[in-house]
Amino acid sequence: MGIRVAVAGASGYAGGELLRLIAGHPELDLVAATAHSQAGAPVAAVHPHLTGLDVTFGATDPAALAEADLVFLALPHGESGALAAALPSGVKVVDLGADHRLRDPDAWARYYGGEHAGAWTYGLPELPGQRGEISIATRVAAPGCYATTISLALAPLVAAGAVAPDDVVVVAASGTSGAGRGAKAHLLGSEVMGDLTPYKVGRHQHVPEIKQATGARSLSFTPVLAPMPRGILATVTAVPRGPADPRQVLAEAYADAPFVHVLPEGAWPHTGATLGSNACHIQATVDVDSGRVIVTSALDNLGKGAAAQGVQCANLMLGLPETMGLSTHGVAP
Amino acid sequence: MGIRVAVAGASGYAGGELLRLIAGHPELDLVAATAHSQAGAPVAAVHPHLTGLDVTFGATDPAALAEADLVFLALPHGESGALAAALPSGVKVVDLGADHRLRDPDAWARYYGGEHAGAWTYGLPELPGQRGEISIATRVAAPGCYATTISLALAPLVAAGAVAPDDVVVVAASGTSGAGRGAKAHLLGSEVMGDLTPYKVGRHQHVPEIKQATGARSLSFTPVLAPMPRGILATVTAVPRGPADPRQVLAEAYADAPFVHVLPEGAWPHTGATLGSNACHIQATVDVDSGRVIVTSALDNLGKGAAAQGVQCANLMLGLPETMGLSTHGVAP
Amino acid sequence: MGIRVAVAGASGYAGGELLRLIAGHPELDLVAATAHSQAGAPVAAVHPHLTGLDVTFGATDPAALAEADLVFLALPHGESGALAAALPSGVKVVDLGADHRLRDPDAWARYYGGEHAGAWTYGLPELPGQRGEISIATRVAAPGCYATTISLALAPLVAAGAVAPDDVVVVAASGTSGAGRGAKAHLLGSEVMGDLTPYKVGRHQHVPEIKQATGARSLSFTPVLAPMPRGILATVTAVPRGPADPRQVLAEAYADAPFVHVLPEGAWPHTGATLGSNACHIQATVDVDSGRVIVTSALDNLGKGAAAQGVQCANLMLGLPETMGLSTHGVAP
Amino acid sequence: MGIRVAVAGASGYAGGELLRLIAGHPELDLVAATAHSQAGAPVAAVHPHLTGLDVTFGATDPAALAEADLVFLALPHGESGALAAALPSGVKVVDLGADHRLRDPDAWARYYGGEHAGAWTYGLPELPGQRGEISIATRVAAPGCYATTISLALAPLVAAGAVAPDDVVVVAASGTSGAGRGAKAHLLGSEVMGDLTPYKVGRHQHVPEIKQATGARSLSFTPVLAPMPRGILATVTAVPRGPADPRQVLAEAYADAPFVHVLPEGAWPHTGATLGSNACHIQATVDVDSGRVIVTSALDNLGKGAAAQGVQCANLMLGLPETMGLSTHGVAP
Repeated sequence: MGIRVAVAGASGYAGGELLRLIAGHPELDLVAATAHSQAGAPVAAVHPHLTGLDVTFGATDPAALAEADLVFLALPHGESGALAAALPSGVKVVDLGADHRLRDPDAWARYYGGEHAGAWTYGLPELPGQRGEISIATRVAAPGCYATTISLALAPLVAAGAVAPDDVVVVAASGTSGAGRGAKAHLLGSEVMGDLTPYKVGRHQHVPEIKQATGARSLSFTPVLAPMPRGILATVTAVPRGPADPRQVLAEAYADAPFVHVLPEGAWPHTGATLGSNACHIQATVDVDSGRVIVTSALDNLGKGAAAQGVQCANLMLGLPETMGLSTHGVAP
Repeated sequence: MGIRVAVAGASGYAGGELLRLIAGHPELDLVAATAHSQAGAPVAAVHPHLTGLDVTFGATDPAALAEADLVFLALPHGESGALAAALPSGVKVVDLGADHRLRDPDAWARYYGGEHAGAWTYGLPELPGQRGEISIATRVAAPGCYATTISLALAPLVAAGAVAPDDVVVVAASGTSGAGRGAKAHLLGSEVMGDLTPYKVGRHQHVPEIKQATGARSLSFTPVLAPMPRGILATVTAVPRGPADPRQVLAEAYADAPFVHVLPEGAWPHTGATLGSNACHIQATVDVDSGRVIVTSALDNLGKGAAAQGVQCANLMLGLPETMGLSTHGVAP
Repeated sequence: MGIRVAVAGASGYAGGELLRLIAGHPELDLVAATAHSQAGAPVAAVHPHLTGLDVTFGATDPAALAEADLVFLALPHGESGALAAALPSGVKVVDLGADHRLRDPDAWARYYGGEHAGAWTYGLPELPGQRGEISIATRVAAPGCYATTISLALAPLVAAGAVAPDDVVVVAASGTSGAGRGAKAHLLGSEVMGDLTPYKVGRHQHVPEIKQATGARSLSFTPVLAPMPRGILATVTAVPRGPADPRQVLAEAYADAPFVHVLPEGAWPHTGATLGSNACHIQATVDVDSGRVIVTSALDNLGKGAAAQGVQCANLMLGLPETMGLSTHGVAP
Repeated sequence: MGIRVAVAGASGYAGGELLRLIAGHPELDLVAATAHSQAGAPVAAVHPHLTGLDVTFGATDPAALAEADLVFLALPHGESGALAAALPSGVKVVDLGADHRLRDPDAWARYYGGEHAGAWTYGLPELPGQRGEISIATRVAAPGCYATTISLALAPLVAAGAVAPDDVVVVAASGTSGAGRGAKAHLLGSEVMGDLTPYKVGRHQHVPEIKQATGARSLSFTPVLAPMPRGILATVTAVPRGPADPRQVLAEAYADAPFVHVLPEGAWPHTGATLGSNACHIQATVDVDSGRVIVTSALDNLGKGAAAQGVQCANLMLGLPETMGLSTHGVAP
């Protein structure tokens, strides 16, 4: 018998990816998969790609989850707080939702509304010192998919003083699974195939999380919906400070990070190259016309942007090798 | 008998779109479609979507083209100059290539190399005063697809002094047809579907054209290849100057432009909504965190970004109604 | 002032395509566009690709529709009958729904259920004698998209005795717009991109319509959902009778049909080549192993499969040229 | 040190998938990856999704491959024979190409041409008795992707006498990676996105392999290119013989097969559900109109259709658990 884990909110896309990763993980045993609206249904009826996984969804019941050594929460924003509070303190928790990410209650109120559930250890192991913090934590808030993509591109540059924190401009495009599995007309295949569209322009709720994680003081962030199921590509630009080569700064920051790859010079990230993996690919240059630093980063929004990163955090919290059950190789083409 | 037109380079994507538009145009008669490598082949063998168009490709021969009242050039960059020089001055020419766009020979030399063919009237009718210039011109250089998308979003704001010209940051994603029809492994469907990737980061050859057309003095431009055949979405950000509402400035600039639509507040552009048309959709806002102006614009790179814009210019040069044979309505979903 | 037309059910995909075609039609004037759930909304808010079309949706009210010379019905199956009955007999009607297609009330009851609204003239002009029937009709039931694709491939072969009517096997794949605009989870972009799946296998409601239109007596029909917004590709196989060359039979049947193209030998249909058009592309051969006749046909399910075919019928009913306002050329790539 | 394996032809799509699977396999160690045209290049330069795999392509040299315990051949058709002949008999070989699949030299000559390399043990473990044959073989010819999809759907029904072998009709659609990585214009993303097209209609070279594997005596097979990178969906229809429930026959045939899943009644296969896995999903019914048996099957053409099936064979040949290093779970959405 391995380590007992449970997934709350297992019928969504991030939940399904957690189930897939847990099924392939050498040390984790799934003891409960809960889904409010699907309780009683076989997992494979909701996730046909998990055919062969003989598990039935349960109701999202704290008692059932409390049987686990570690619980993953993959719930809609605003629902994690109450459930987490009902779990015994001895049960470790990784929350993939937004509820416990922000340290600033005002930012929470301004962008999400409702009561702030309080901040947990931020689950981005590649931030300076964060791997250690996660390893001793019992409650970890995994970052959002945009925040992960942008923070991995930007945080080391701000920390090193290589770019100014006060004029950061980001455009990031995401595959449709980032918008969730709810049946909405604007997310129909007929609408999204062949189409690019920006959304929440000038006021996205992830801005405070990105600023908190990167040290940016002023952030223009424009998200774009792209015609593919998975993947985020972020283009991050900032004004350089001093002569440091941004690619070199990033390469040094991630020299020991198993999942973050600063690509060889001349190679640029492809979201497709990270599909299904926990990898993030990064490249940087200096623009010849404007002199701005341009960093691009790519990952799988359900992988390093959600479920796989959650498993990475769980591995650290459980004393397992950080890479166990995770892949750095995408499924391509 | 209508007005006689010819297309040189008719086997490529922009050439094929020209043939489609000409076939549906009430006043234009196609007298020659030339294609170096496909001479002698039926058009429909190369463009199956033009099945029913009973035309055979000819060789790219100045004498054959000189039979036309107006010639469209849809040739690879660097090939228009010589062919145009061989055409009689009485034949009007619209060049969809880059050869005659730049006024600055140094910029040409730096980004393209080779001898500069000289600048023609710039074929973006929506720029201030440009509609009149095009109407009296015999040689018009139609803008590039990225330059059109970005200039329509930015030029009125710079001209009105509503944004500073010296810190413009642009990220724009394009469908794959913008990369042409040459058989290259990185453009295979297997590679591009499900994938976003930046390219030519920090040094794209269209930067001088965009600066010339918009008045921007410093431009960070990152192009991205998106998994769809057609469409460009540009996200343009700049620092505001003064209190002008950017959306209002744009709405006034395009009040009489039949093909450029500033969308109702709250609506954001979709590339898919412009497919096959000559429309450009634009929306603007001010970012709540950074205070930057964000403008997004969408069009069809083969439509308003190439062939349809070429026909719009031809209409003006020939004294026809500007909108003849063109649609503002995309083919969607 | 041209001929007055109205569209009931104008907020759906077929309705939107009708609005687009009517806006580009030289003789048709739109006097009403109705949509139950969107009454009062601007058309462009629902159909962003029709930005610039200054029309507001009305309620689906027979009195408003009765102002038109001809009404297009683009309603869900089962809703056309009652509305059509409420329109004056002097108003011509083209119904894109299924209600009036079947001559056999038992087949209606078995596959659709509810009361049979009665059969109208079947709106497939390329069937033998049907062009004339439509020209004198005041009520026309336009065929379904699958039925059009399959009938154009098969009907001439059965009529000519070139294939046996009693062992026809069809597999046809459709883009997602054929499934409509309702927000359903299995039609989300995240689900359909990268995916092929069969549906309604062995019991599709369009089987009786296809048999009625083609003369097939036994039909195995398997529909497949394909990852693209538009297009149907049908593969129709049947057992040959006699030595006739199936391609030749089809070529002769469509020699005078402006929208149906039997391709040159060696060329096979592409759905993409028909996008946005009223064209159907067909090719046929005899299988070297089984000796079966194989016919493949491709069209745009919203074009020749729905709205454009409706306009073709309307042209005939109104005494206009059959091709007016319609294109044989697809938008590609 | 585990078991030493090598991959010849490692720069193609099947070769890349082999490298990915070997990297994640607990017992296999990659000792050589050869690629004619890429010798000397880092693997990640050709396969960006394998970033982090520190391997360089070698030349396709028998001596280098002979260091391995088992060699995978992922070469173009016609190139395996000579290379295999140059390997020592003690080196086990799994050939993913077509060269050693056909037992009938005449069929080889008719469909492929050139000299027949001779038949090896056929690597489809789910065929009756084949698992044992593969386990004792030193040379295995893994089936083609279409042949695998169709054989898994059909072979048990023919073997059980549940369908007639002499009127089998198949339509199967494949993602673009099945057409390989060569730069061909008709495989460009611009061409294939939004498009379905049949090809090699009536004369596909895989027909004799499918007949050999299934026992079908007459086969009409129409392949279709679908707009997605991976996946095959086959629709197989045949005339029933006797009262057996086809779904039940298939369920019994695969009761102990870890990778072939007959889905619950009412559920139909999705290619997307098998992405990246070695799974094949199957469902069957009887058509209410024609009485034909309809079986649909879905798999990943690079997974169970090529590389993963090759690893499954290798596991058997090496005495490892059949499922080692392979997944039954697709990466979805």
